[in-house]
Amino acid sequence: MRILALESSAVAASAALLTDGELTASVFQSAGLTHSTTLMPMCADMLAGCGLSVADVDLIAVARGPGSFTGIRIGVAAARGLAWGAEKPCCGVSTLEAMAMPLAFEEGAVICCVMDARRSQVYNALFSVEGGALVRLAPDRALSLEELGQELKKTEKRVIIVGDGAKLCYNTLKSAADKLELAPAPYLMQSAYGVALAAADEAKRFEPVPNYLRKSQAEREREARLASQNS
Amino acid sequence: MRILALESSAVAASAALLTDGELTASVFQSAGLTHSTTLMPMCADMLAGCGLSVADVDLIAVARGPGSFTGIRIGVAAARGLAWGAEKPCCGVSTLEAMAMPLAFEEGAVICCVMDARRSQVYNALFSVEGGALVRLAPDRALSLEELGQELKKTEKRVIIVGDGAKLCYNTLKSAADKLELAPAPYLMQSAYGVALAAADEAKRFEPVPNYLRKSQAEREREARLASQNS
Repeated sequence: MRILALESSAVAASAALLTDGELTASVFQSAGLTHSTTLMPMCADMLAGCGLSVADVDLIAVARGPGSFTGIRIGVAAARGLAWGAEKPCCGVSTLEAMAMPLAFEEGAVICCVMDARRSQVYNALFSVEGGALVRLAPDRALSLEELGQELKKTEKRVIIVGDGAKLCYNTLKSAADKLELAPAPYLMQSAYGVALAAADEAKRFEPVPNYLRKSQAEREREARLASQNS
Repeated sequence: MRILALESSAVAASAALLTDGELTASVFQSAGLTHSTTLMPMCADMLAGCGLSVADVDLIAVARGPGSFTGIRIGVAAARGLAWGAEKPCCGVSTLEAMAMPLAFEEGAVICCVMDARRSQVYNALFSVEGGALVRLAPDRALSLEELGQELKKTEKRVIIVGDGAKLCYNTLKSAADKLELAPAPYLMQSAYGVALAAADEAKRFEPVPNYLRKSQAEREREARLASQNS
């Protein structure tokens, strides 16, 4: 499955192409230019550079927010336009979940996603990393840094902060919560790579495969038989 | 200082633009196309997308090896050509050092850079991370995985393996050395971002600023005075 992902929720813009979970190509730009002039050419150049076109893509994914009102609208409009023209499915993913996705190697940590929402608030979501996957601890929400600090104090785990509000959050809360860490530089900001990973995850969850929650009798009996043979 | 960096030492190719240590733009591509047709358009599109040209760049950096003989030659020729045409300085950095640079946040770990050199050998360099900076433990070299395994057994530290030979190295040596870890996915392969970081580091070391190795008498006396005032 080939996913084309767009991210334009903040000052930087990016595009990524993910093929069966592996990064085929990516473009990132933070030169202060408006997304309305840069985002589409970035996608076109990236695809052309790979010898591909939108027709070769299976799914178009976009960060649907929270984030800059103008940035989000440009991203969503661009993704919908591309999808409509090429008759491809299109999906939106949470900007906050997308920025946590590339950090799913931080086993046992809490990932705290933070964007500066101004008006003394941040956009935030919390995840824990368990078995290499994200487990959501809090929904996407807007709250004050003070409220977030109170919540983070309760956890015993390492807390890794990510997003364009990460430095603000770290500087404000580090005295109150000593387990806070800033995500490493290449992960610190939202990226289309994260959007593509989140979309791949979502697409897998939507696949029409049975989810029984427990093993069938045949499987349980087989496992018991194998266990008794090995003991 | 604005650095344009090129990386084409293996299957993937990438370009990056670093402005005063911050990533302004990057392009990555691993679609199986030859670097001779993709690398220059990648650089041109990236600069144009930022509203810039080669004239706006202060230094052109390239991974000078080890790596694929053809890939390295294409990268070095492209960098030299760009630099010659635009009358800009050009520098080459070690491919192995460049792949370690983005991992300098892994305080206290050993970074083990590995590329598959075929003929039962790997290209390798070792670094430790101390105070957020890389300290070189071994020169760029070609050696057998067996010899590398013997060396890695001696360290008590976490060993993080990076590069296009990382998985080969990990799978071969993990039974012998239990402290081995694979670098997280986005760091696993060499990148122009790492080349730009290595070039920035090198440029700083070459700056004509005095390096006295110890403090001047005036500084020592001032510090002693301040210490006695505070006690």
